[in-house]
Amino acid sequence: MDNINEKNNTAMRYLSTLNLPNDVKKLTFEQCQDLCKEIRTTLIDTVSKNGGHLASNLGTVELTVALHRIFESPKDKFIWDVGHQCYTHKILTGRYNKFSSLRKENGISGFPKPKESEHDIFISGHSSTAISVANGVAEAMRLQGDEHHTIAIIGDGAMTGGLAYEGLNNAGKTNNNIIVILNDNTMSISKNVGSLAKYLSILRSTESYVKTKKAVEKKLNNTPVIGKHAVKILKSSKDALRDTMFHSITMFEYLGFIYLGPVDGHNIEELEEVLLAAKTYRRPVFIHIKTTKGKGYLPSEKNPGEFHGISKFNIETGNPEISGSDTYSDVFGKELVDMAQKDNSICAVTAAMEHGTGLHYFSRTFPDRYYDVGIAEQHAVTFAAALSSQGKLPVFAVYSSFLQRAYDQLLHDVSIPNIHLVIAIDRAGVVGEDGETHHGMFDVSFLTSIPNTKIYSPSCYDELKLCMKKAMYQDKELVCVRYPRGRENATFDKTNLNTDYTHISGNKTDTLVITYGRIYENLYNSYIKAKKNNMNYDILKLTCIFPLSNMIIEICKSYDNIIFFEESYYYGGISQILGDILIQNNYHGNYQRVAPKSFISQASIPAQLEHMGLSESKMFEKIEQNFKRRGQIKCV
Amino acid sequence: MDNINEKNNTAMRYLSTLNLPNDVKKLTFEQCQDLCKEIRTTLIDTVSKNGGHLASNLGTVELTVALHRIFESPKDKFIWDVGHQCYTHKILTGRYNKFSSLRKENGISGFPKPKESEHDIFISGHSSTAISVANGVAEAMRLQGDEHHTIAIIGDGAMTGGLAYEGLNNAGKTNNNIIVILNDNTMSISKNVGSLAKYLSILRSTESYVKTKKAVEKKLNNTPVIGKHAVKILKSSKDALRDTMFHSITMFEYLGFIYLGPVDGHNIEELEEVLLAAKTYRRPVFIHIKTTKGKGYLPSEKNPGEFHGISKFNIETGNPEISGSDTYSDVFGKELVDMAQKDNSICAVTAAMEHGTGLHYFSRTFPDRYYDVGIAEQHAVTFAAALSSQGKLPVFAVYSSFLQRAYDQLLHDVSIPNIHLVIAIDRAGVVGEDGETHHGMFDVSFLTSIPNTKIYSPSCYDELKLCMKKAMYQDKELVCVRYPRGRENATFDKTNLNTDYTHISGNKTDTLVITYGRIYENLYNSYIKAKKNNMNYDILKLTCIFPLSNMIIEICKSYDNIIFFEESYYYGGISQILGDILIQNNYHGNYQRVAPKSFISQASIPAQLEHMGLSESKMFEKIEQNFKRRGQIKCV
Repeated sequence: MDNINEKNNTAMRYLSTLNLPNDVKKLTFEQCQDLCKEIRTTLIDTVSKNGGHLASNLGTVELTVALHRIFESPKDKFIWDVGHQCYTHKILTGRYNKFSSLRKENGISGFPKPKESEHDIFISGHSSTAISVANGVAEAMRLQGDEHHTIAIIGDGAMTGGLAYEGLNNAGKTNNNIIVILNDNTMSISKNVGSLAKYLSILRSTESYVKTKKAVEKKLNNTPVIGKHAVKILKSSKDALRDTMFHSITMFEYLGFIYLGPVDGHNIEELEEVLLAAKTYRRPVFIHIKTTKGKGYLPSEKNPGEFHGISKFNIETGNPEISGSDTYSDVFGKELVDMAQKDNSICAVTAAMEHGTGLHYFSRTFPDRYYDVGIAEQHAVTFAAALSSQGKLPVFAVYSSFLQRAYDQLLHDVSIPNIHLVIAIDRAGVVGEDGETHHGMFDVSFLTSIPNTKIYSPSCYDELKLCMKKAMYQDKELVCVRYPRGRENATFDKTNLNTDYTHISGNKTDTLVITYGRIYENLYNSYIKAKKNNMNYDILKLTCIFPLSNMIIEICKSYDNIIFFEESYYYGGISQILGDILIQNNYHGNYQRVAPKSFISQASIPAQLEHMGLSESKMFEKIEQNFKRRGQIKCV
Repeated sequence: MDNINEKNNTAMRYLSTLNLPNDVKKLTFEQCQDLCKEIRTTLIDTVSKNGGHLASNLGTVELTVALHRIFESPKDKFIWDVGHQCYTHKILTGRYNKFSSLRKENGISGFPKPKESEHDIFISGHSSTAISVANGVAEAMRLQGDEHHTIAIIGDGAMTGGLAYEGLNNAGKTNNNIIVILNDNTMSISKNVGSLAKYLSILRSTESYVKTKKAVEKKLNNTPVIGKHAVKILKSSKDALRDTMFHSITMFEYLGFIYLGPVDGHNIEELEEVLLAAKTYRRPVFIHIKTTKGKGYLPSEKNPGEFHGISKFNIETGNPEISGSDTYSDVFGKELVDMAQKDNSICAVTAAMEHGTGLHYFSRTFPDRYYDVGIAEQHAVTFAAALSSQGKLPVFAVYSSFLQRAYDQLLHDVSIPNIHLVIAIDRAGVVGEDGETHHGMFDVSFLTSIPNTKIYSPSCYDELKLCMKKAMYQDKELVCVRYPRGRENATFDKTNLNTDYTHISGNKTDTLVITYGRIYENLYNSYIKAKKNNMNYDILKLTCIFPLSNMIIEICKSYDNIIFFEESYYYGGISQILGDILIQNNYHGNYQRVAPKSFISQASIPAQLEHMGLSESKMFEKIEQNFKRRGQIKCV
């Protein structure tokens, strides 16, 4: 495979003419290699413009082509784990022409989406679900007498999640036509996230399945008397052949699977040979393929971590188009290092998000107190709770959406024993192009349903630092500090920042507008504009958003008219809690709230905020309507 | 070990005189056996009176004694997985005298509780947490230079949970002094809940660790020239000895542990030998012990399932003291069988709670469509969602408290793709003596935070059946039908039952009292009593509790005074949602709600309802106060 480092301007001979996916079966191996080149060019070109997951998709081009040649989608079901490796699958199943709209509003999703195509069997944005899904799909097919195959494609990283193990344990006992393909790109290994990773690296170093098989066949063929006959018997009795080939039993065989591997995941011939073998077994098969993350694009091969999920970049250099100042994650990560310099009880925990959460500053400085537990949020919380129970000061940094996995651990292992644990919740609020599966829209709702919980939602970097200090050294319970994806855009006055609330009053008004977090910026700009238009109201910015202090209730009670803007799910949000407290306090004013009631599709973050009514202009509009309705300004 | 089937009235020679746990180290093996008899008598006697977990505790008597002889609690930390197997540990650590208060209000908890004793390292009522906890504790000890051991004791059932695997994967890569003891009582096997179970049964049938070790030593001793020297070398080089003893590597070794086993878990000498060996390794060790669930009490050995968690029973016969009519679980289980007779698309899924959820009726009748996935709620939901995506009609029956484990799967795998999945939520509300870790107090809060969700909370058996039909055949989203532990006690009028709401009006009153579920019975009785006292109010019983229909809002708006009683956590509850809707609808009446704000300690269910203000008398009191405050009845 050549490196495609330069922009390829030639026409896409195969992609633009073939009737896909069926025609992929008609190609020679050589033609397949050309097709793979075209696919790689398309991937690099599109992701350089739209952002997205590049490295993992470059690693699965040959695998996806081979799968579509050996199996018949959608009758055979491909289930992609952490679906972001499904781009080639999308290109091969009727979505090549629309592929330039990848991750754009109303465009092709970056994840499998059944509504988009019958070839997308199940949604998947979170990790480690594919084996369980494949299990359910295969079981339904068995009950219907359908003998097609269900194929789960899962990365070595995703294999560190407990759900994957639950899936293996349940799939392994069946006789269903399930094939689990472990796409082992060693990403979990470079990060050394567990003993499974070590084990896989040993397996990977054994001789390849195809080579061994051919060697055995050749040897038997050369034995004059029984040779050819034996080959025939062995070919029809694959279990025996496999036993000849491997001297030790793998862990996956203990879990009920036939193990085939390792196989070079960039060699279509080898891939097809092993897939054909797997197809004939009619019981659960586990195929171990070795791929190179970022394959075929040098900058990506060199830095697969950076090209995992990436923004727009320059194809020639591989450099991101937008770079620069620190993000919320950086500010958090650097501040934690500062604190840990003075306090050696501080420990940091991540679930496979070292860079995403900004913990790479910590891991470099304090490797001895840094824990990357793999994609295992449940373990991360329980482990951190245990560290805290023994006098350590752990911080678990995690994306809001992924913390959903640890709801029970927060309740059972942290809240009931009332353990002090700090959770740094990154990607709170909408996240843009990753869409429905990745928004941090539910942490407020599910965290407020847990007793002994405190939540901060700072609106700028300095406030984030204040909240961290409070959370670490003054609070004693489960304390969550949540902040959005990306950068601060705080043009508002930052004097008198604190961890409770900021009340901008004195505008001779009966109206109070409340919000918190990132969108305070939008409200503040709307407020300045409103002032210029003689539409006066006061503002309450919450920093500690839960529990709500009595002072906040008292402030609210002094206004006849309250509007609350919230970038969090409608049910269970802070504005709901406040509404309920106010009515119980016999508040008889006008109370309105704006918060999203449904999942938000992929788009840019500003577009998503606009759709939810949380942009500056939408806030202005909503408040203006309110003033008009109440006769405080004239309707035009 | 003799069977202790008759009541033992003799004094407890050891338990009442020894200074425990230290003195346990001074006993001979024979004395230990006598101590174990005393412990078993205590366990059977207490559980027969108080109810509790019997079978698992009878299975771990010798193990617990051996642990306390070889290790030094609390410097060495014992972490009990699903803590209900900790009774002997409690008896040996200063709680023998209070043991008769087991599971009673203000008594000894049925689970490890750090507040109760320094020997209880971490709370554990939910399964599969111990390895993660041990990992955190051991890591904190390493950072502090403490070389004591951390020992996680986990059952084969708990090993089916993904969190246990996440724990193994992370513990296995360390060099910490972690010992994981797999208490294999074959419970997961009799139920055939996965490939791990099959694998463990193979391991179990291999020759015992101690026997093999002795055989190897003997053989080497008898070899005249190098014999004794070799034994010495081997003894000091335990890895080599182990390699001699086992021809194949176990799965647990792949995950980074030294594997020792299997060992007879009822033979204290063998147990001590293997624990001593484990102690010397100074890296993660996995010990596989074989125990008999219910050991030493015939009725329990015969029916360990029934004696897992049991109510009061007669020691002579083993029969429960209270038996009789169907519970909510039975009614659900039988109704599902009726429905499935006519509809072969119905499938049933449980996470190791076949009997508890009433699914044993289904599993007997339709084994081909019945799935026990082990203690794997995450997998259960994703698997069921996949079944549904392929046209099946799955029902996942689960305890409210355990459904917390599947929050992300409900959101990501069911809600986002808007899949029709019916969840039968058993043990909704307080559950009595199991206490904090087992109450079903949070399902309403966390389910309402998930879009595309509908929740029913029937107040009697007939309503449960109506809700099930609606959920299966009319609703199209994530539908939850929740009902309490135990039996219906519905003396109220059951004509005109429906799945929406029941409005008892016409009492010439401005007061509406709202509730749902089991406690409607209490409200209804309070209402009858109030009527007799000329305290008139109307009632609104919700059956579909979420989302709240417009009709419900309209009804509420016609009253000036509303009181809502709710057996669910205060934050995120239906009464909070209603309060917020009312204030947004400019409701200016008086709105009060009663719902618990903190965890509820162990006690009987009636006592717990009383403490939360949800008993008949407390409801009466609250409503009477309201009437007095508003001057509608005179203050006496």
